Amino acid sequence: MVPSPERRIVILSEGAFGEDASKTARGVLRYASDPVVAVIDSTKAGRTVDQVLGHRPRYDGVPIVASLAEAMALPERPTTLILGLAPAGGKLPESWRAMIAEALRRGLDVAAGLHSFLSDDPEFAAAAAQGGAKIYDFRRPPERMEVATGRPHLPGKHVLLTVGTDCAVGKMGVSMELALAARDVGERAVVVPTGQTGMMVEGWGVTIDRVAGDFIAGTVEWLTEEGEKRADWVIVEGQGSLDHFAYSSVTLGLIHGARPHGMVMVHQPGRAMHHAFETRGDIARIKPLQAMIRAHEAIADLVEPSKVVAIALNTSLYEDEEVAKRLIAETAAATGLPADDPYRFGGVPLFEAIRARMKTEA
Amino acid sequence: MVPSPERRIVILSEGAFGEDASKTARGVLRYASDPVVAVIDSTKAGRTVDQVLGHRPRYDGVPIVASLAEAMALPERPTTLILGLAPAGGKLPESWRAMIAEALRRGLDVAAGLHSFLSDDPEFAAAAAQGGAKIYDFRRPPERMEVATGRPHLPGKHVLLTVGTDCAVGKMGVSMELALAARDVGERAVVVPTGQTGMMVEGWGVTIDRVAGDFIAGTVEWLTEEGEKRADWVIVEGQGSLDHFAYSSVTLGLIHGARPHGMVMVHQPGRAMHHAFETRGDIARIKPLQAMIRAHEAIADLVEPSKVVAIALNTSLYEDEEVAKRLIAETAAATGLPADDPYRFGGVPLFEAIRARMKTEA
Repeated sequence: MVPSPERRIVILSEGAFGEDASKTARGVLRYASDPVVAVIDSTKAGRTVDQVLGHRPRYDGVPIVASLAEAMALPERPTTLILGLAPAGGKLPESWRAMIAEALRRGLDVAAGLHSFLSDDPEFAAAAAQGGAKIYDFRRPPERMEVATGRPHLPGKHVLLTVGTDCAVGKMGVSMELALAARDVGERAVVVPTGQTGMMVEGWGVTIDRVAGDFIAGTVEWLTEEGEKRADWVIVEGQGSLDHFAYSSVTLGLIHGARPHGMVMVHQPGRAMHHAFETRGDIARIKPLQAMIRAHEAIADLVEPSKVVAIALNTSLYEDEEVAKRLIAETAAATGLPADDPYRFGGVPLFEAIRARMKTEA
Repeated sequence: MVPSPERRIVILSEGAFGEDASKTARGVLRYASDPVVAVIDSTKAGRTVDQVLGHRPRYDGVPIVASLAEAMALPERPTTLILGLAPAGGKLPESWRAMIAEALRRGLDVAAGLHSFLSDDPEFAAAAAQGGAKIYDFRRPPERMEVATGRPHLPGKHVLLTVGTDCAVGKMGVSMELALAARDVGERAVVVPTGQTGMMVEGWGVTIDRVAGDFIAGTVEWLTEEGEKRADWVIVEGQGSLDHFAYSSVTLGLIHGARPHGMVMVHQPGRAMHHAFETRGDIARIKPLQAMIRAHEAIADLVEPSKVVAIALNTSLYEDEEVAKRLIAETAAATGLPADDPYRFGGVPLFEAIRARMKTEA
């Protein structure tokens, strides 16, 4: 999915905009290179995105509407419908089905990151054919199934991998902020998307957690190569965490497949247990940051050495900016690494610290 | 696939019996609970298995025949055809196709571990329907797709996981030998098969390297639970190795999904580079045994502590038994762990050392 210059996005976020479930919607609003012309959420219709999420340049004045029909009546008519959330329980509600089919019949491309694929649904396939529209199922594993080859990086490239102390901790956002910051200071930078939100933002990538075990590292390897062809700074979006009993294998496939020049560790102070596994007891307890740094460097070392080069803190649990800044300073002191919250305070200082560090080490 | 009491096996090993490619054939001959009545390899027809592989109780007198027709004419008529190797290049040769279809039409079940599934082939599906036969595609991922839950082990169970310093180093064989040995000394033991050879031997399991990343640990978790329901000693067959840039993610999913009480490290002295990746340079160099022991214990620790409790050496590169025994003694001294070659010298001493060690630690 290469974004066309005329792609204009409408995001379906029915009943959930501004809440936890709207992570994809936020990501697309904040980072997509194409404009978002409207968000659909009938429970918040009449307001604008900034009135719900707070002020940001990309949020200001974007209307929240009640239906696809309303979105289609806007002066900037959308060309792509992005499903900004998964339906609760996994099954598409009837009202969504009707809207998706209508969008396709009217020629809008539809992008989704659901476990069940829209393009396998005869109704949607027929509607797409009728409207000349495309369906993008971003969770569908790629045709390209390859075992890792151990390829070296292209010369002069800098590959970073975001890792973290949990899932849903901000690795995608940190990847995007670092790429934006790199471009701000004049570098050619690209994010290698490995999850559906990143793919919706960037228009390419692979939902790596759907790839079969034998091909995880191989897929990460060719995705990274693709990133190296596109830019000098390649920021591979991480997934899961190495201490997570359910998802660690995906994380390790990213480390050994990308073989990054450096890892950026994302950590949320104040979070004690793995997200969505809070009731599992000790096995779901998040390991200390320092232990996680050592573990990542040790496991990378078994294939190709890589250091944690920076800590990206997610300070969202601490509303007070002074507290957030104190946490950042304490983390930098404790680890001896550059630390910041790039999502909250901008990515340029952290990116520049990483760049300086990697030039010294190289 | 629950083996019936009347299952009699014929193994297809055309052109490859006794060579590297016949790992599945050897595994089934040596460990299957059902008898192997013949091996098909026209290049070695007229000899017996022991004349090719050397003397073993399970090998003695098993005829090697040139065709399925010959096998069907034996007094002990086979009921199941097992494809004991993958066709070179991935595509089934015409002669194999004809033989498989013929077997199905004559009512023989066919078990295969190919990446492309026999049961998806209309000719084979029709032949199976005609003969009332079943096709078992052991690489097909299971219907059951589950994220790991972090469940505790059932009380009183002992879960071992075989790990290793490479793939194709003997983890399946060591798992089988330890289970046989455990039974020999009066324990209830089961192997949890995670690859197609183990599945062909045991008649159940999942080819774990075909499972999508998000479900690797979850699948290992329920397979282990299944093992715990069947026996007291549960030996989970390992895959890949933690220092392998292509396959480490599968290995880690096994460690964090099985959360074993102990790990048995399989290592082949004399092997310097990862199997089938010998030309890749330093990245494919096998890490030192001691470093691998530390790495496995450290990565297990991030979820649930587990120690390497024994070293199973694969001494097959050293024909001289005295040399093999010296290597074993040296390894035991260097690691402070019980060491042996259970495949070569029998599994009872190693199993008993493990059992004693785990009782002390518990």
